[in-house]
Amino acid sequence: MKNAVGRELPSYIEGYGEVVPFQGAENNSTVKPKTTVKGSAVGPKDVKILSSISEAIDKAEIKDGMTISFHHHLRNGDYVLNMVMEEIAKRGIKDLTIAASSIFPCHEPLVEHIRNGVVTKVIAAYMSGPVAAAISRGELKYPAVMQTHGGRGRAIENGEVHIDVAFVAAPSSDDYGNINGLQGPAACGSLGYAVADCLYGDKVIAITDHLVAYPNCPIEIDETNIDYVVKVDSIGNPAGIVSGTTKVTKDPVGLKIAQMTAKLMKASGLVKDGLSFQTGAGGTSLAVAQELKDIMKNEGIKGSFASGGITGYIVDMYEEGLFQSLFDVQCFDLKAVESLRSNKAHQSMSASMYGNPHNKGAVVNKLDIVILGATEIDTDFNVNVTTGSDGVIMGGSGGHSDTAAGAKLTIIVSNLVKARLPIIKDKVTTVTTPGESIDVLVTERGIAINPKHADLIERLKKTNLPIMTIEELKEVAEKLTGKPKEIESDDKIVAVIEYRDGTVIDVVKKVK
Amino acid sequence: MKNAVGRELPSYIEGYGEVVPFQGAENNSTVKPKTTVKGSAVGPKDVKILSSISEAIDKAEIKDGMTISFHHHLRNGDYVLNMVMEEIAKRGIKDLTIAASSIFPCHEPLVEHIRNGVVTKVIAAYMSGPVAAAISRGELKYPAVMQTHGGRGRAIENGEVHIDVAFVAAPSSDDYGNINGLQGPAACGSLGYAVADCLYGDKVIAITDHLVAYPNCPIEIDETNIDYVVKVDSIGNPAGIVSGTTKVTKDPVGLKIAQMTAKLMKASGLVKDGLSFQTGAGGTSLAVAQELKDIMKNEGIKGSFASGGITGYIVDMYEEGLFQSLFDVQCFDLKAVESLRSNKAHQSMSASMYGNPHNKGAVVNKLDIVILGATEIDTDFNVNVTTGSDGVIMGGSGGHSDTAAGAKLTIIVSNLVKARLPIIKDKVTTVTTPGESIDVLVTERGIAINPKHADLIERLKKTNLPIMTIEELKEVAEKLTGKPKEIESDDKIVAVIEYRDGTVIDVVKKVK
Repeated sequence: MKNAVGRELPSYIEGYGEVVPFQGAENNSTVKPKTTVKGSAVGPKDVKILSSISEAIDKAEIKDGMTISFHHHLRNGDYVLNMVMEEIAKRGIKDLTIAASSIFPCHEPLVEHIRNGVVTKVIAAYMSGPVAAAISRGELKYPAVMQTHGGRGRAIENGEVHIDVAFVAAPSSDDYGNINGLQGPAACGSLGYAVADCLYGDKVIAITDHLVAYPNCPIEIDETNIDYVVKVDSIGNPAGIVSGTTKVTKDPVGLKIAQMTAKLMKASGLVKDGLSFQTGAGGTSLAVAQELKDIMKNEGIKGSFASGGITGYIVDMYEEGLFQSLFDVQCFDLKAVESLRSNKAHQSMSASMYGNPHNKGAVVNKLDIVILGATEIDTDFNVNVTTGSDGVIMGGSGGHSDTAAGAKLTIIVSNLVKARLPIIKDKVTTVTTPGESIDVLVTERGIAINPKHADLIERLKKTNLPIMTIEELKEVAEKLTGKPKEIESDDKIVAVIEYRDGTVIDVVKKVK
Repeated sequence: MKNAVGRELPSYIEGYGEVVPFQGAENNSTVKPKTTVKGSAVGPKDVKILSSISEAIDKAEIKDGMTISFHHHLRNGDYVLNMVMEEIAKRGIKDLTIAASSIFPCHEPLVEHIRNGVVTKVIAAYMSGPVAAAISRGELKYPAVMQTHGGRGRAIENGEVHIDVAFVAAPSSDDYGNINGLQGPAACGSLGYAVADCLYGDKVIAITDHLVAYPNCPIEIDETNIDYVVKVDSIGNPAGIVSGTTKVTKDPVGLKIAQMTAKLMKASGLVKDGLSFQTGAGGTSLAVAQELKDIMKNEGIKGSFASGGITGYIVDMYEEGLFQSLFDVQCFDLKAVESLRSNKAHQSMSASMYGNPHNKGAVVNKLDIVILGATEIDTDFNVNVTTGSDGVIMGGSGGHSDTAAGAKLTIIVSNLVKARLPIIKDKVTTVTTPGESIDVLVTERGIAINPKHADLIERLKKTNLPIMTIEELKEVAEKLTGKPKEIESDDKIVAVIEYRDGTVIDVVKKVK
């Protein structure tokens, strides 16, 4: 069968199950109730502190076939996933599903657990590095499931992903499991991606290297959700926790794209008092934020909120009064962590509050403008941020599809040519975000507007911006590079790409 | 059948259902999973603002037989329950259950709705005034259910109380339902009692008189839980929102009791660094706090936390450094509201986090000492705070049973004689809190210690405190007043008293 972005899908995938094809971004036919949560009763005499991860594994009664979850707020500095999995592997436990909000290069030891059958399934919203490569080569027994950040919250809430045991890296915890990400040597800021795991996991174990007196303050996730607390020497390497990419680009092409994007945003009519805005942590995205900052300052515009993974650049805009508040699902740098600690209107949000399409209203629904990247985009405006042009998994939606669906104006910013390949293709290697959610592509050579936005095209024609069709822009690129070869892939499905509502928007096949 | 406090109970009560008898405070046989929650999907184009309560009733599709919930943070100044019920009654809807966290004298119009069959069942943790009186007279079709604050959270979470529509008085809300109790003309502070209603209600409607720009800040209960927002002129009368009883007693008897209690606490060995403490808002309870404050200041003791309904007296102790933090389920006065607004370590908690026995650990479990009142106490130390000595409902557990069960030392403070009646009886009129949770009774004439605390009795014998048995103390009282007459009651059960775990600890019968 074909889904709404024209991808051919089997009706059933071994190790995944029935395939519900993607039916469009605004289709709500898959809404389900939130699931039940295992009952627990911790009384006045019960103690939650355990002496080791090993004891926690005993208490949680981890068995073959269970689903174990982790969050990725410690990003490439995370020690917790590896520590826990090493201990689990020692016991000969097999056939586990790892539901991690993201997988980073530091999680390389997972490859060995995959090869040994300790781990046979992986669910994540983003993955890069050796684990992603091993999965792309078909080393994982069952297909990986790639979700969006909001979709992961949704799937945990409605029970599609049932977490048997959640291990929650907690930069700060008291002995009763009141945790936050603001304090301690591995402070990472918001714990937004861990919230659903804590609320819905059968057993939830906080792993901390910073045990504070009861009660912890502030409390991001409270004691009523945590079964046990384990103190370890270190939960993460601070150098890896901070993202390496949070600097404004110095590349003149990126800066040009940012300037064009700024003009476009202004022409859109959305840059006015009450503006809400999100941008990624990539160099060009941050350059757009810088441009926007100048416009807002020059014109005295007071925005409403900025959201997402928060960087120091966005904090600066908040502190200069350009936004009234910040919604933070993860902090990308230490300035963001410090701001979350000290600025009252800088508030954490859970992944579900951020982008779950099946709750009573996510923050992305309130976004005016979002700036996103793309590895590839096709002439239907479908975007790939999941696989490289070689077909190897090197990312994933994260909040891409969530924000694109919610925002009034979704702008993709990208160099027209990357690594000598045009980013515009007839068909993207993998559809991460459907074209219907994408409004504009801005490249240094020209701007393509999704034809569904006749109004925006009219508005922009009045500017001196280089508006063209996406087909025209594709030709410009191909004149520079030639038409790239199609990649070859095996028939084996190595990953199922779920749209934020849990339908299947694409699959990734084994690289040859 | 008889329950663990010796009360004779039917196995089934019409309009209530099967009776699970109380089996002891530490029995966990009734633990259930948290229930499912109706699925919802609010998208980018959906608008939550409605023009009136009437429109909200339409949208929520309120029908005969539904359960409608309210919280009591506006206490005796609440307008919301009456406004909503007036509108519902106009439509001829019948047979509703009102699940209000508490019912106050201001809710008198409910009596008419009870008489007209609009309301046939009431569930609350506390009720006083005309509604309580009408229920005591047998005017409500089905027995009222009286819960504890923690028990209400539990029952909503596990689905024993299924809320069809929650109407949430919101002192401050944005157009997407991010609410707090800190701002606006009806600011009441913490919204702790409303949390479960918002998380578990099929439809949740915020009623506000203070609509702010999106996003509200701080967010106590977030947009993902709220279906609709209605702006009205006023949600409550500030004069009634602030409790009338939050002053230290000037009565010399009350002050004497407070001094004795302070000595007792000190002798218990618990008044030391790390002390956690809760006291009510009654005059004698506050006098105990004052005494404790002096001890802590004189001895340089740094406590851990104070919890509960928070008063300005407790805020003072916090601000003087005597407690590191405050856990606040409701603010009793404006000083507490202001502190919750401005003091970072003054944190809100939900009713479930406060006292639900069936979660992963409530705050009451961490309490060292709680000071509570009593209308009656019997020689088994069972306490009644539900009915007066005339058998009329005039209160309810609130957090009484929750804190008594959790704290290491539960002290009842009371005048030995009230309104010419001894407070100590052979059997209390209604058991609210089981004697096993009560450690000490302090009266101006003597102190009785629950015999299960041999250690505490030994410790206190070394002081000059007037320790006696509760039977001796009862005799002292009866010498002053004579033995009171037993009240007569009808056979009709007008209220079922649920212990915090949902078992039945007692019933209230119709007054003759």
